[in-house]
Amino acid sequence: MTTQLQHARGGTVTDAMERVAERENRDAEFVRQQVADGQAVIPANHGHDALDPMIIGREFATKVNANIGNSEPASGPEAELQKLHTAVHYGADTVMDLSTGGDLDTIRTENIAYSPVPVGTVPIYEAVTRVDDASDLTPELLLDVVEKQAEQGVDYMTLHAGVLAEHLPLTDGRTTGIVSRGGSILARWMEEHGEQNPLYERFDDLCEILAAYDVTVSLGDGLRPGSLADASDAAQFAELDTLGELTRRAWDHGVQVMVEGPGHVPMDEIADNVERQQDVCDGAPFYVLGPLVTDVAPGYDHITSAIGATEAARAGAAMLCYVTPKEHLGLPDAEDVRDGLAAYRIAAHSADVANGRPGARDWDDAVSEARYAFDWRRQFELALDPGRARNYHDQTLPEDNYKEARFCSMCGVEFCSMRIDQDAREAGDGMDGLESRTDLDSSAAAAVNRPPTGVHRAEKLDDIPCPVAEDDVAADD
Amino acid sequence: MTTQLQHARGGTVTDAMERVAERENRDAEFVRQQVADGQAVIPANHGHDALDPMIIGREFATKVNANIGNSEPASGPEAELQKLHTAVHYGADTVMDLSTGGDLDTIRTENIAYSPVPVGTVPIYEAVTRVDDASDLTPELLLDVVEKQAEQGVDYMTLHAGVLAEHLPLTDGRTTGIVSRGGSILARWMEEHGEQNPLYERFDDLCEILAAYDVTVSLGDGLRPGSLADASDAAQFAELDTLGELTRRAWDHGVQVMVEGPGHVPMDEIADNVERQQDVCDGAPFYVLGPLVTDVAPGYDHITSAIGATEAARAGAAMLCYVTPKEHLGLPDAEDVRDGLAAYRIAAHSADVANGRPGARDWDDAVSEARYAFDWRRQFELALDPGRARNYHDQTLPEDNYKEARFCSMCGVEFCSMRIDQDAREAGDGMDGLESRTDLDSSAAAAVNRPPTGVHRAEKLDDIPCPVAEDDVAADD
Repeated sequence: MTTQLQHARGGTVTDAMERVAERENRDAEFVRQQVADGQAVIPANHGHDALDPMIIGREFATKVNANIGNSEPASGPEAELQKLHTAVHYGADTVMDLSTGGDLDTIRTENIAYSPVPVGTVPIYEAVTRVDDASDLTPELLLDVVEKQAEQGVDYMTLHAGVLAEHLPLTDGRTTGIVSRGGSILARWMEEHGEQNPLYERFDDLCEILAAYDVTVSLGDGLRPGSLADASDAAQFAELDTLGELTRRAWDHGVQVMVEGPGHVPMDEIADNVERQQDVCDGAPFYVLGPLVTDVAPGYDHITSAIGATEAARAGAAMLCYVTPKEHLGLPDAEDVRDGLAAYRIAAHSADVANGRPGARDWDDAVSEARYAFDWRRQFELALDPGRARNYHDQTLPEDNYKEARFCSMCGVEFCSMRIDQDAREAGDGMDGLESRTDLDSSAAAAVNRPPTGVHRAEKLDDIPCPVAEDDVAADD
Repeated sequence: MTTQLQHARGGTVTDAMERVAERENRDAEFVRQQVADGQAVIPANHGHDALDPMIIGREFATKVNANIGNSEPASGPEAELQKLHTAVHYGADTVMDLSTGGDLDTIRTENIAYSPVPVGTVPIYEAVTRVDDASDLTPELLLDVVEKQAEQGVDYMTLHAGVLAEHLPLTDGRTTGIVSRGGSILARWMEEHGEQNPLYERFDDLCEILAAYDVTVSLGDGLRPGSLADASDAAQFAELDTLGELTRRAWDHGVQVMVEGPGHVPMDEIADNVERQQDVCDGAPFYVLGPLVTDVAPGYDHITSAIGATEAARAGAAMLCYVTPKEHLGLPDAEDVRDGLAAYRIAAHSADVANGRPGARDWDDAVSEARYAFDWRRQFELALDPGRARNYHDQTLPEDNYKEARFCSMCGVEFCSMRIDQDAREAGDGMDGLESRTDLDSSAAAAVNRPPTGVHRAEKLDDIPCPVAEDDVAADD
């Protein structure tokens, strides 16, 4: 079997590349070239039949990942499928199944069977559940788990192969130590065994497995900063250098690569962080977790991190891993998933607009035209979250006739600036028609830059009931 | 009577400057110099006895304004005082009373009597309520309203004096026309009367009134863009040039000046917008409304705008006017005020950290130290919104013993990276103590960069019951 990277290098435009080109409104040959050069990845395990292929790369629409999965055995496969459905409904471009309890194989294979979006995992989580103590992990067990998950159809895997034994002393003076789960497990293992990171030692063997199934490797940043105090420190950048080396080694095996990034970074250091990764890793797609621009707001970290994510994507990050309001505090529920995805779709789209992605701003223009025309139904329909926009409006003006009103309760009819402005124009030279001018159907924008978000070829997922409450789905009754 | 600007120019350090220096941890002489140069303002009407003076300027901690007031006559003075209390409780540095219905004089004078923070208004709103139709407004009525409100103790007033008749044709091709309430009222008046903006024509007379009471003028941007499509257009920048001229004219009268800014601006144009205003207006403090970095997310505009506000403050904006989740959809309730203020306190503080304000990051460090030490109570106590942080944590782990637990429900005990990391360090060379190292009491940070937010000398406000629910106030039971 051949990976997308190998096909691209050989000059072949695959079906996946064709589909991606269609979704992104780009030329298929451009897609092929970006994949061939390692500047973009199409995570698409040969065994993931339900997948609607998508692409992650600096030159394409910015993507958003949602973490699903459980951290307690109570949550079984059905509950997990509901989380998948919710995440896809609210616009996740990929999901990571981070389950650490229960019947992991069933949860994972069910997710893959139903998911139209790439499914990522962190194999060391499962490996740890198969031993009494993390110190009992062996290189062979890690390889076994990776191979089994690859066979099950996982599209990308986070491997913290860049955390080296010699990096660990660099974390000693940190405020928050090692905050990556995989990173902390491997650090402890290395200290107890006095040996090098097995994922680094066996990286070539791992790449052979990944290449066989076309699993994209997501090089984990086990030493990412967990606080502003630790941002951009020697430990983070030492690991990044190793990730650059591993990027090239994976490419040598024909494996597609993305690289994970922080975490917690002050606003003024984010662009530098992105540019450094792009330089060190030869342009491999950067997949960042936020970053959070302040540590002071637990309960609002979807916001602290969406600010950083916008800046990161503007500077060249290709995919944003969402953060929910429960970050640092507890396991998110469905409403947290919704809030986190909304914040991150905003970050991704705003960055695409700022970066001048073809047609990206058409969506904004269409919403603003509907707003100025007081076409409330169309404004709701086009909104990032139609159900919420309508519900907020209807809290004060629920009656149907207000859907054509030339005001809302924010300013009232007497003080609505757009109503006053239009009256003045009518009294003067008259106005052009207020119907929408922007035709989203013929927009050059990538699919993720047009409403509704979360549109995938998802026949299989549509077989199961949508867990999102009915009145949060529709733009109008 | 003499304004703070006139005192500063004369070399006098006033009591207000002394108090500001204390709150900002800066030298009083530096405060005086910044005010003398027009680079900062201390909005402090001579008649506002309950005021705890604060400063707005590029060189000081970034401030946040919350709009209160009603847009329906149902809401009376008591309800308005509750809104004031809520806004101050959640950290507003100033409030604007934008009431347009009911007994405006009583609402305004009560707000001023109780408010420890500067109270701003938009006098044209009251003027409009005193005529049958906005076209009946007269220059004399506008001057009368300004003088009465100045006498009542208003600390700053938005005057849309920069919208000139010759600017209006520049808005003809816009997607969303004129979206400022004051701007749209004045535009309509100018078109109906065929005359110049009366606030511009009578600007010197207005300045004489403002100077007599030391009311700071906030030069409104009546032609601010209401959509990304209209951002940075000819109309916006033509008005900005006039605002630069008016800044210098107000300074000539000894009036303190700030300048209002957009609105809706793509992420890549925000820094340019701020730098242009600072250049055109000779460094007068920039007071921005967001800006929103995308138009597509009604229901989440506290987030779309907090992203832009962070970037604006990083680039030099001095005060951020908050936006609530109800923006474009309806009148905000108390929970919306809370969400809006949280998003904006995040934006302001993150920008202060990015700009290297002395001591600003101490707050982040203290939170992260508490987090790594699993000192949940202290993490909640230090949080931007203690009640929400605790409530979110307690949704899954309410029992008291979990306040000392070395994990939360997000990852569970087996997979808590900080727990694993600390175990590894204990097993190795041992760890230094995990008690907090950062002493916030001796921090060089300005008061607004230390918890709790919203701390003012507020004896009078404390006389009335706090409307915030009891369990949303305390960090712990």
